[in-house]
Amino acid sequence: MHVTGIVAEYNPFHNGHLYQLTYCKKQIGSDFVIAVMSGHFTQRGLPSIADKFTRTQMALHSGIDLVLELPVPFATASAERFSEAAVSLLHKTGCTHTLSFGSEVGNLELLQTIASTLSKETPLFSQTLKHALQQGESFPRARQKALIHSLTALGFSPCTLEKILESPNNILGIEYLRALTKWESSIIPTTLKREIADYHQTVITAPIASATAIRQALLASDHTSISSCMPPSSFFFLPKEPTALPQWDDLGSLLQYKLMLSQKEDLYSIWDVPKDLMHSIYNTFSQTIDLETILTAVTSKTYTRATVQRAFLRLLLDIKKIDMLSLETHDWIPYIRVLGCRKTAFPLLKKLTQKASVPIITNLSKVKHTLSPEAQKLLTYEIRATQLYYYLCKKPSFYFQDYTQPFIKV
Amino acid sequence: MHVTGIVAEYNPFHNGHLYQLTYCKKQIGSDFVIAVMSGHFTQRGLPSIADKFTRTQMALHSGIDLVLELPVPFATASAERFSEAAVSLLHKTGCTHTLSFGSEVGNLELLQTIASTLSKETPLFSQTLKHALQQGESFPRARQKALIHSLTALGFSPCTLEKILESPNNILGIEYLRALTKWESSIIPTTLKREIADYHQTVITAPIASATAIRQALLASDHTSISSCMPPSSFFFLPKEPTALPQWDDLGSLLQYKLMLSQKEDLYSIWDVPKDLMHSIYNTFSQTIDLETILTAVTSKTYTRATVQRAFLRLLLDIKKIDMLSLETHDWIPYIRVLGCRKTAFPLLKKLTQKASVPIITNLSKVKHTLSPEAQKLLTYEIRATQLYYYLCKKPSFYFQDYTQPFIKV
Repeated sequence: MHVTGIVAEYNPFHNGHLYQLTYCKKQIGSDFVIAVMSGHFTQRGLPSIADKFTRTQMALHSGIDLVLELPVPFATASAERFSEAAVSLLHKTGCTHTLSFGSEVGNLELLQTIASTLSKETPLFSQTLKHALQQGESFPRARQKALIHSLTALGFSPCTLEKILESPNNILGIEYLRALTKWESSIIPTTLKREIADYHQTVITAPIASATAIRQALLASDHTSISSCMPPSSFFFLPKEPTALPQWDDLGSLLQYKLMLSQKEDLYSIWDVPKDLMHSIYNTFSQTIDLETILTAVTSKTYTRATVQRAFLRLLLDIKKIDMLSLETHDWIPYIRVLGCRKTAFPLLKKLTQKASVPIITNLSKVKHTLSPEAQKLLTYEIRATQLYYYLCKKPSFYFQDYTQPFIKV
Repeated sequence: MHVTGIVAEYNPFHNGHLYQLTYCKKQIGSDFVIAVMSGHFTQRGLPSIADKFTRTQMALHSGIDLVLELPVPFATASAERFSEAAVSLLHKTGCTHTLSFGSEVGNLELLQTIASTLSKETPLFSQTLKHALQQGESFPRARQKALIHSLTALGFSPCTLEKILESPNNILGIEYLRALTKWESSIIPTTLKREIADYHQTVITAPIASATAIRQALLASDHTSISSCMPPSSFFFLPKEPTALPQWDDLGSLLQYKLMLSQKEDLYSIWDVPKDLMHSIYNTFSQTIDLETILTAVTSKTYTRATVQRAFLRLLLDIKKIDMLSLETHDWIPYIRVLGCRKTAFPLLKKLTQKASVPIITNLSKVKHTLSPEAQKLLTYEIRATQLYYYLCKKPSFYFQDYTQPFIKV
């Protein structure tokens, strides 16, 4: 039984994702494909365009065999933490052989070289990094500079490197490779070149479009274009009304209230938000109630829009450093939650139950109380994220869906 | 120097309040009148129609000499706690001789008899109370029944008693009298009959109208009627635009978020909210986002609308049992905050500073750190209430007014 793992947001599941799935089955020869999927919020800190249970339906009906949930603190973390947790999860399944990921460059060897340069942190690398940070560069940009400097010394072309490191899927790919090394995993990585759609593309022009372009078309109710780049099995489940989409702006009032409730010291206990960024959010909230205005005011050369959005979300979910530190000592992942499984993949689910090194959750309300305190805390964040998501969708009757929704079988 | 104390919301300061003030000066012969005034939220748990600094201006310009702040947990508490704290505050001034309060009945002796019956809790009283509670009556109604039963046995007419105990100012008056006994205060109570305006009256018909009627007229922009029942010195400061009024409905989204953040156990740590009421609020919030719908669903024979509104506010301000218990051991009041003073009353302010048994706050940012931990905690609630109030007014630039606004001198 050969099993391949994919890390994805499926926001929504489109033809590009189907292409990757087909590649895993046909070219790699996988019997089963597992997706480690983000829940209700994306890596950019934004609510996804369909709830996680609907996106699980999309994936399963399109041929994904098993959907596992990437817990919300990691799903909305920077590339490094996101990848570490996703790879740790696949590693802990105990039954994943291959990790498939898309990258703009499509060259595994090159990505491996970059990954190991980053992990080694040579003196040249460290010096350049330090210097760039002192110049006020953001951490990702400073690291990129240090990397280019180090690799140029090894004979690579700075121009090519710059292009590689500006592409988000290359960056994630590098982080997956680093994480595989970190967790000493036997999972074999393989990368697939993203041929057609650019991540930043905002218009649908081909049968394979970016998720960003699809989301734009959804807002414009351009269903014809969307249906041209999604498998019908996935398109069927997509909410078609713009009013059904979560309203990100509604987070503004909650953020105001959260800041009112907090002393500055409480704010500094939030996980993975730099102190000066938090300071700047706190100082801005008494200037305006409008979320977009706060976001624009706080975004800077050092802290990108995505970083600020993630900080907002972490604040709102009240994700505490102390809880995350205690998870870190368990390689981040204290349980594996099954969101859905194809009936034909029940043998895989059975194997997962036998081989996994952490508890498997298929029915949350049944097992929550049996889990470790760390795991229960992590689940609390997950349940809170679900409630926040449905608040943004104006659907309070779904607040407790994490408890009431059995794992999806198709 | 004869000093009279008044407990009031001044929401807004109207001719009835002026009448009481004149009575204190002319009939009682007071040199100075102190008002213990509610801050941004009223006893019914609602935001006041003007912020506390504006309402202080109204009172001072109309002749009140000194305005002291009744801290928010007490200002928004049931009659008993409200009165205990207000009287404790006046008692701790060390320089108040008389307590003046309005009552529908205007008969101090009768109110005293009722107050002492309540405080004694005879076996007949206790039995009737217990029985009525078992029948599902709310605590105020059950206590009223027990009281009528006990006093009828002493020869009073049940009809008269019922009428007396249905009038909110009589009820408050009785609680003031009980509190004076509880704190063993030498302050002499005196009551003034409310001749003209009924508390429940919603239309302005006379030069003395109820605050409720004035608030209704304000919403209808009927400024002519309002000006007929307010002293010009107070009317001048009243916000005239309905859009300037705080939007109570906006609390709905914050309440949703607060409940998302909380585990049921956290909710039970909120001060003075019965467990079954909290339970019922928690169970209702996943049915609707609309505040009014939740309020209606949760209001019952046992828990009045005002009780539920107060519970919402206590939840939003996160007023904790543990903090309030620790205040109770200091007779509730760990400091006296001056909101404003007439310049002609500076001798009174000087005397207050000499005689008061707790620290006097005239500049919050200067003294906050010098106060006891209990006092600092209580101030944190006050500052949070100010932020919440200005959030409802869409004026975030006033969030920190408690720190920036010096006490008002006119």
